[in-house]
Amino acid sequence: MKLILLFLTISVGFISNEEEYKFITKYIDVPLDHFSFTVNNTFKLRYLINDSYFNQDDPIFFYTGNEGDISMFAQNTGFIFDLARKLGALIVFAEHRFYGETLPFGNASYSSPQNLGYLSAQQALADYVYLINDLQKQYGKNVDIIKLPVIAFGGSYGGMLAAWIRIKYPYAVTGAIASSAPIWQFQGLTPCENFYKIVTDVIRSLGSESCVNTLTKSWGILRNLTKTDKGKTDVSNTFKLCQPLKNQNNTDALLSWLSDIYVNIVMINYPYPTSFLVPLPGNPVKEFCQAIDSSDSTGDEDLLTAVAKGLEIYTNFTSSVKCNDILADPAPNLGYLGWYFQSCTDMIMPICSTKDDLFEDYQWDFSEFSNSCFKKFSVRPRNEEVPILEFGGKDIETATNIVFSNGLLDPWSSGGVLKNISSQVVSILIPDGAHHVDLRSSNPLDNEDVKVARQFHEIQIKKWLDKYYFHNLPLDVYSEKFKGRF
Amino acid sequence: MKLILLFLTISVGFISNEEEYKFITKYIDVPLDHFSFTVNNTFKLRYLINDSYFNQDDPIFFYTGNEGDISMFAQNTGFIFDLARKLGALIVFAEHRFYGETLPFGNASYSSPQNLGYLSAQQALADYVYLINDLQKQYGKNVDIIKLPVIAFGGSYGGMLAAWIRIKYPYAVTGAIASSAPIWQFQGLTPCENFYKIVTDVIRSLGSESCVNTLTKSWGILRNLTKTDKGKTDVSNTFKLCQPLKNQNNTDALLSWLSDIYVNIVMINYPYPTSFLVPLPGNPVKEFCQAIDSSDSTGDEDLLTAVAKGLEIYTNFTSSVKCNDILADPAPNLGYLGWYFQSCTDMIMPICSTKDDLFEDYQWDFSEFSNSCFKKFSVRPRNEEVPILEFGGKDIETATNIVFSNGLLDPWSSGGVLKNISSQVVSILIPDGAHHVDLRSSNPLDNEDVKVARQFHEIQIKKWLDKYYFHNLPLDVYSEKFKGRF
Repeated sequence: MKLILLFLTISVGFISNEEEYKFITKYIDVPLDHFSFTVNNTFKLRYLINDSYFNQDDPIFFYTGNEGDISMFAQNTGFIFDLARKLGALIVFAEHRFYGETLPFGNASYSSPQNLGYLSAQQALADYVYLINDLQKQYGKNVDIIKLPVIAFGGSYGGMLAAWIRIKYPYAVTGAIASSAPIWQFQGLTPCENFYKIVTDVIRSLGSESCVNTLTKSWGILRNLTKTDKGKTDVSNTFKLCQPLKNQNNTDALLSWLSDIYVNIVMINYPYPTSFLVPLPGNPVKEFCQAIDSSDSTGDEDLLTAVAKGLEIYTNFTSSVKCNDILADPAPNLGYLGWYFQSCTDMIMPICSTKDDLFEDYQWDFSEFSNSCFKKFSVRPRNEEVPILEFGGKDIETATNIVFSNGLLDPWSSGGVLKNISSQVVSILIPDGAHHVDLRSSNPLDNEDVKVARQFHEIQIKKWLDKYYFHNLPLDVYSEKFKGRF
Repeated sequence: MKLILLFLTISVGFISNEEEYKFITKYIDVPLDHFSFTVNNTFKLRYLINDSYFNQDDPIFFYTGNEGDISMFAQNTGFIFDLARKLGALIVFAEHRFYGETLPFGNASYSSPQNLGYLSAQQALADYVYLINDLQKQYGKNVDIIKLPVIAFGGSYGGMLAAWIRIKYPYAVTGAIASSAPIWQFQGLTPCENFYKIVTDVIRSLGSESCVNTLTKSWGILRNLTKTDKGKTDVSNTFKLCQPLKNQNNTDALLSWLSDIYVNIVMINYPYPTSFLVPLPGNPVKEFCQAIDSSDSTGDEDLLTAVAKGLEIYTNFTSSVKCNDILADPAPNLGYLGWYFQSCTDMIMPICSTKDDLFEDYQWDFSEFSNSCFKKFSVRPRNEEVPILEFGGKDIETATNIVFSNGLLDPWSSGGVLKNISSQVVSILIPDGAHHVDLRSSNPLDNEDVKVARQFHEIQIKKWLDKYYFHNLPLDVYSEKFKGRF
């Protein structure tokens, strides 16, 4: 079975004009289980902290860490720094349990379902609330206000956590900026085919119709050619594979690898060069399709050669890669196994392809998926429980102080909140934006769209903060220190 | 150590003018752990259901069960029936995990911390949300509205759960009536001495100053007399104990037993006869003090005899009890051990006594308490985490659609929400009311206070329902079926 398992996050090692952001690394002991009492264990949760802009009574900007090493996010979320410098804020990046260095059972964290089972979004949110409470004690002493206001930030899965922490713990967090957060990419909330449709639409509009056609045709040709040993060898050569294709499983892996690359090229279609896995040029979708369209693709093998040429902008932009290892861990800084587990438990996001997209047809089969999860982790997905029962599904009208931002070039916008829910839960679209580009620091090549989105975030945050200080301080203190500040 | 461990709930076997309420008993399989994935177990949760007033599109009235057998609550919460009959509603009483018949591990449920650890308020709330989702599928099919509105009801600990389910799961429940719900009876939220002060004030105002003085003196006399063997025998006879006092532990048990009775008499100071453990007359505080005050209490032994005479209105109202068993399970229908466990884990409610109340001095010592919990259950209390971090403590300004009602004769009002939090989270006081009297069906002897409180609940519920139907139905359906109905 082909398994579609897509990382939400792609913030790995950008070539960036961002400064290097400095932190102190700290740890806090948090309970392993916040909701039951079968174990008394605690573990060390890592967080990064920068108080260089913080003065007493200032807010806390709290990044709700995603499925990977937190230092990666801390170095690629410059917007928070820009704003902290401007408004005065304590900056905290919290690492998600079971990722990076935050391994509750050390090397044994992934060794059994009994250990790994404590990896869940709900436990992670409770960790963050626990840490916020501790930060209030560390930084909220001897100040005028009882509790410092906390603004949650997050991108991708971290954005989902930022929205959910405000929804579930509004007393811990004053507001949330949830960037590219597909909180509705779940069964019954979003049709599974939307994701690949967006990828296709973006390649069509920023690349070309012929590029879409070439990619669409490639699957059948690949399936056909790899039926013979000679064909397997030819295809292996065309795509410069480190290990030549030997069997059907290898072919499946090649097709998954190709699909994932197309998705990634679209997700990180930023206007400036970045380096995801390997370095990429700015506007990679356009470059990718130009390379494909400028090659002859009349015959079957020509067509594959054209695709392989396009791929080079992703796999070999700096001409230093000798061969493509299609089985390598696609993102060493992200927790592949952890995210695989979460995809089987609380973050089950159905994705399928149809005739309307450029991908090979693939139906979402829940029971087949469930069986593969049970085989791998001895868990059965609880399809409905977490996204709908624990986090409310589409029923979030009672929430307040959340901004959902979505780049419309981002396939994950398929599961995003693209409309205003109320006057207090609002959506801002970034038509020319890719995956959570608004959380990055400003860049001379930024589109107007993303500049506006960052201004929008700032205005909302200031509004929340002003209201918070007005309500939580004696009027004279507010008037003297905070009136007009935000 | 004297352990102060008070049940919140006292709805046991009232002599009532209530009809017998009829139900169908059903069960639903719910996950043992809603928040982690270390186990895949499910268990059968019992619930009672009555659909005799329900028509399609009607609301669900959902009682969030407390620390005891659910059938007890279902027979003593007539207000819900009165309102369901009037407004049309499905009535559901859900049993709390680890109480009544809802034992996740059957007879082994209490046999180890590994099993018992799944007893927690948070897991119970998630059970209720899981059940509500199932009810929506059972009763919400072929109706005009996507989800039926759900109103949560609860008294005492059940009232805390009703408030919390609205706070944590506003998409599952439209509004909540939280009666006598001491959600602030926790460390740092309410001074521990308030509880016994209220008991003392009520005995002073409804009984007499001399009654308070007699009770206040009794502790020293008891401690003094029981130093000798003869004194132990005399005291045992005075209080008609089934097992004569032998040692210091027995004396401690007697004093705890007496304290608890004084609390109970105040908690159930209803204007009509009830039967808690044993039958009680109406206005028991007054009766109790009249019996004490009409006896001679000049000498030490006379004073104890006077107290014992007062006690008879509680222990022997029907003159059928031969002796008092001070070590018997005080409430067989309540889950003593379960509540003891919860008092050690998520429901840690500090109670102490000072010179300002009629009780023997008793300081709340957290570390001593923690040690006793560890000895008994191998758990350490997480003092702050559940009430403050998980449920927000006093920071519930963002919540909506909750009514907190409190009888001011009820000592648990010490931890109740006695002021309006906002226009949408409101408090109603019942000055002459005892513990969650407003959830009982109407009685000819009801005070005006409680009548008004019930009207207040009805008005709020109608307002919530009208708004819900207006927002969730096409205008023509709303206009035809619901406009003006609530």
